[in-house]
Parts: sequence; structure tokens; C-alpha cells
Amino acid sequence: MVRTGSASVAAGPTLAVVAREAGVSVPTASKVVNGREDVAPETRRRVTEALDRLGYVRRPRFDGARPPRLVDLVVHSLEDSASGAVLHGAEEAAHDAGLEIVVSAALTRSRSERPERDWLDRLVLRGSAGILFHRAEPSGPQYTWLEQHRVPFALIDPVRQPPPGVVSVGGANWQGGVTATEHLLALGHERIAVIAGRRSTMSCGARVAGYRSALASAGVRHRPEYLRHADPNGAGARRRMRELLDLPEPPTAVFVCSDRMVSGVYEALAERGSRVPDDMSVVGFDDLPEARWLTPALTTVRQPLSEMAATALHLLLRMTDGPRPESIRTELSTRLVERSSTAAPPGA
Amino acid sequence: MVRTGSASVAAGPTLAVVAREAGVSVPTASKVVNGREDVAPETRRRVTEALDRLGYVRRPRFDGARPPRLVDLVVHSLEDSASGAVLHGAEEAAHDAGLEIVVSAALTRSRSERPERDWLDRLVLRGSAGILFHRAEPSGPQYTWLEQHRVPFALIDPVRQPPPGVVSVGGANWQGGVTATEHLLALGHERIAVIAGRRSTMSCGARVAGYRSALASAGVRHRPEYLRHADPNGAGARRRMRELLDLPEPPTAVFVCSDRMVSGVYEALAERGSRVPDDMSVVGFDDLPEARWLTPALTTVRQPLSEMAATALHLLLRMTDGPRPESIRTELSTRLVERSSTAAPPGA
Repeated sequence: MVRTGSASVAAGPTLAVVAREAGVSVPTASKVVNGREDVAPETRRRVTEALDRLGYVRRPRFDGARPPRLVDLVVHSLEDSASGAVLHGAEEAAHDAGLEIVVSAALTRSRSERPERDWLDRLVLRGSAGILFHRAEPSGPQYTWLEQHRVPFALIDPVRQPPPGVVSVGGANWQGGVTATEHLLALGHERIAVIAGRRSTMSCGARVAGYRSALASAGVRHRPEYLRHADPNGAGARRRMRELLDLPEPPTAVFVCSDRMVSGVYEALAERGSRVPDDMSVVGFDDLPEARWLTPALTTVRQPLSEMAATALHLLLRMTDGPRPESIRTELSTRLVERSSTAAPPGA
Repeated sequence: MVRTGSASVAAGPTLAVVAREAGVSVPTASKVVNGREDVAPETRRRVTEALDRLGYVRRPRFDGARPPRLVDLVVHSLEDSASGAVLHGAEEAAHDAGLEIVVSAALTRSRSERPERDWLDRLVLRGSAGILFHRAEPSGPQYTWLEQHRVPFALIDPVRQPPPGVVSVGGANWQGGVTATEHLLALGHERIAVIAGRRSTMSCGARVAGYRSALASAGVRHRPEYLRHADPNGAGARRRMRELLDLPEPPTAVFVCSDRMVSGVYEALAERGSRVPDDMSVVGFDDLPEARWLTPALTTVRQPLSEMAATALHLLLRMTDGPRPESIRTELSTRLVERSSTAAPPGA
């Protein structure tokens, strides 16, 4: 079969035949076939009927046009409320760069905790301009595999410290921890507790370090009993908040290292009749959608997740065309979003 | 250049050379190259170093393997809290069928309200097993284009009535409206209002019809002043709830046609010192993530969004292999999720 490079490959009748059948010009018929808006409804109907009657099938023209490139986004879970913001940022940036986003929760899906060899093989067969990972990190062998196959990749808000040389984009976690704690100090709090996620989580360590730095700068003693690590969900945080309320001298404010955990903190406080913010001030981190929906609405440190995803995509594209960027770790600034969950300490 | 169909296309040294350099067997070297886990760390290190030293580049084998097929999911907005559940369901079903999901918010992105011709052209160039649309519907010309190019597509929870013959999957909206209203009737309410979305929204019409049917079955008079249409967001619903509270005889319960609107209803009630559920019972619809985060947690009619997306994907795959399914509109059942926002009317 001979295919001329730039010709439209039409099966069945040509557009000229269709135009004649419909009683319109060829450019008009072409507009209808190409889904253009600037055609009168009645004309469109006539052309569409002619197309159907004649069995015209339009095929794409391959005159130099190339299929768009695909970028992979691998997320921890599509049900995580942070995924929406990450996807939004990545999709917008990809669209602007003429790329499309393939989404998968493949690496960590529960039925396979092991690296999915099939997934990586499919990736190579299909072609990918690169991979973004959000809260889902490759295993050691997968890192090796990716390097070996020269597949560019970058991590968004990595959970664990990445191997040397791996490009990542995160929020300014340390600075955010400082900001949250300084906000509480400025309101007059001194008994400030922190409910952190797992010790192994990288962002969590930096947020707690920021909290300690802010206390130290203000000359407020750090009390070890005020630092509690929890499973990063509502139930884990509820347990820790109860423990804090049971202390001989409970805190008057608590910095919760992720908005994901705040619903549990609110529940523990409600159980004891402790009102937010009158009896207890609460500051979160992330500015996930739930921060707005909680009552009272949560004062929190905003991480620009969409912007982080867009930045990671841009770094990825630079890597496909050239060397790895000089700066391996990019941190985007965080800022306090004041809502209704903080106030001066009781009796102040 | 001659390429043998089934051979591994290796640039640089063969795997045998790598294995010899690393002092391991060829199968062991192969395991490392393929990202397998069952290799001792020290062995992996030796092989990886040999690969790097020799500049080995593995290329995929094209022995009959085909790139995986792509399915497109077009959503209204990736920041909509329903998108997570839809993506989750579509991605899981696609993965099980050996497909991958390309996500875009392209059709309705604000910078282009018109159909994006480029997007459809790219789709044909790239190839797509079909398209799922969620709360983002093709325009008239796009419907024509899709039919013309024999691209299978299906709608998930369509906003507007689709053209004849278009396959869609929704929740049982009418039945859900009945369920919500019967729940309130069973608690003893008779003054039941409904805050609906826009009149033109298909699901909204069916939910309101269910509400009216349940009232009629119970012999409760429908009061026209108790039916309010609003923009489908918090601000729109807040305005309508205020109007309801200003009636000479305000309702004791309100059925809100989407969880998206409930935050505004809660705000209007809080402004007037009206407590949920003591003074006013509230039932939502959808069971979006915010239903759990609101205080009090929202009693709502659950739409199985993930299952709806998975069902739409399966219908799409059937269409790629055969004729259009006989049943054009599939409805999945809804059910009441009881939480803390409903109780008997005051004084009951």
C-alpha cells in the first residue's frame, strides 16, 4: 500500500463528493467534518446527512503532525484530597506545553506493594516524556530501572528522603512550621503542642523543626510531652489529642502537621467540651479542601500543591531536553491562611 | 537499518558483556536490568556499576507486545471534590482491563469555552479507545465530530439531557429524592423544603421530582414557596436558606440537592442561631468528601461515583468491540447514609 506523506487518507468518498451531495462548497463540508462552529445549523445537518449516507470516514492527516507526548503522573491515591490540586496543576502545565497526562495509582495499589514490572514495561512501550510521583515513591530497584532507561522523573512532596541526585519539589516545610508557631505565639500562647505525622515522613520532620525553632527564638521552653507523633489520619490524631488533654498541664494551642488529621483533633476536643478557638487554638498545614469545610474553618499553612506540580512538570521537561537541573530540591513558599480556629488563650 | 522483529534492540554492549564485567550470570544481570526485586543488594550494586561503566542502554523488546490502549477521561474540573471518586473508579477499572487513563479538563477550561479543535485532532493522532465525560459535555458539533469519527464515548452523571442514542451512566436520582424525603417524613417532619440546583440540570430535576412524589405518597401538601432553585454552590444555597428562614412559616427540614451547597446552608442557619439538627434537619445528596467533614456530619444520599465511572468504562469497552449497548441510560442505585444532621422536628 502506498501512502503519500501529506495526503488525507480517506476511506470511501472524497470530501468533494460529499459537498456535491449536500449542495455546499468543499470548504463548508470540510468545516463540518472538522467540528468547526461557524456553520449554520441547517447546513451542518445537510452535510452530516450526506456524510452518513455516503459512509464517509475521515482519517487524520499525518503531514508532519506528531502525536502529542504523554507525561505520567503516579499518585498515592486518587481519593486523597490533595490529589485534586496536584492533578489540576500538572494538567494545566501539561496542556500549556502541548502534553497530556496519564494518571495512575499503580505503584502503591493495595493488591501489589511490590514494584509493578508490567507498569514500567508498558511505559517504555508506550513512550513517556517522563514521570511525576506524588506521595508515591519508587522502590530502590525502580529508581535503578528509571535511571538505567534514562526516563526523566521528579518527585512532588516526597514522603521519604529521595536518593542523592533525584529531583523533587516540595513546600517550604520548615518555614511553614515557623509561621504556624509564630502565629500562635503572637496570639499570646506559650503552651503550644504539636501533633506530627510519622517520624519517617520527611515533610513532618521539617515542620516540627520549624516549630522548635520558633519556640526557641521566642524564648519559650520546648516541653517533650507536647510533641506527639501519630498515624497521619483522623483516628491517629484523635488519640494524641486525648493524651494532650490528659496532661497535668494541657496545652492551650496545638499545631497539627497536616489538615488530614484535624477532624480527629476536633472530635477529641468536642468529646471533652473544649471549644475551638475559645478553649483551644488549632493550626493545620496544607490547606486541603477540608480546611474550609471544618467548623470552625481551619487556620492553616498553605502549601501551593498545584504550583508544586506545575513546577515539577517544568523541571521534567527541562530534563528531557538537557541535563538534570542544578538545584535538586525546589521548595515553594508556604503562607498562613487565617480562618476561625485560632484566638488568644483562655483568660488572656 | 535492519531490525529483527523479536530481538532486544541493545545500543552498546550486550547483556553477556555486562554480566562478565560484573562477575555474575546473564540471568542475574537480566534481573537487575528488568528491575526485579530478587537480587542481593551487593549483586545489584555490582551489576549497576557495570551497566553504568559500559554505557549499556536497554531498549524495549517489541516481540508482539503492543503499547497499552489509552482511554480519555474529560472532567469539568479537577478541583471538584467529585472528580477524585470518578477518577478513582475509572482508573481502577482501566487498570483491570489493561488500559491507561489520560485525564483532561480541556473542554471546559475557562480560556476556551468553545470546543477545542486541537484536542480532538490530537485524540485522533494519538489514538484513544474512547472518551468518558464527567460533568463536561460535548457541544453539538463535537457530538457530530465524535459520531463521524466513530470514537466511542459515554457520559458520567450528565448535567444536561444528552442527545438521543448517547450512552450515559448516572445515579438513581429520582429514587434518591424519594429516599431523602421519606427519611425526613419518618422523623415526623411535614414542613420540608428543598434547595435545588439550576432548573436545567438533569439530575436536579429528577431529585426534586422524587421529593414531590414522596410528599404526595405521604399525603403532605407541596408548598411552592418551599422549592428554591440556586446556583449549585455554597453562596447560592446560603441565599435560598435565608429566604426560607424568612417565610411566615419556615420549614423544619431541608433537602439540599447536592452536598456542594450544604456549607452555605449551614452558614445561613448559624447566622440565625438555628441549630442542626435540633432546630433544622438537613439532608444532602452525593456523599462527597465534605459530607463527613461538615459539623454536624451530613446525612446524605450516596451516589456511587466510583462505580458509575467504572460502569461507564465497561460500557465504552463494549462499544469499541461491538454495537452500542441496548440500554442507553444506566442508573446505579443510591442509598441513604445516616450521620448527624437529622432529627425529629422541634417540639415533636
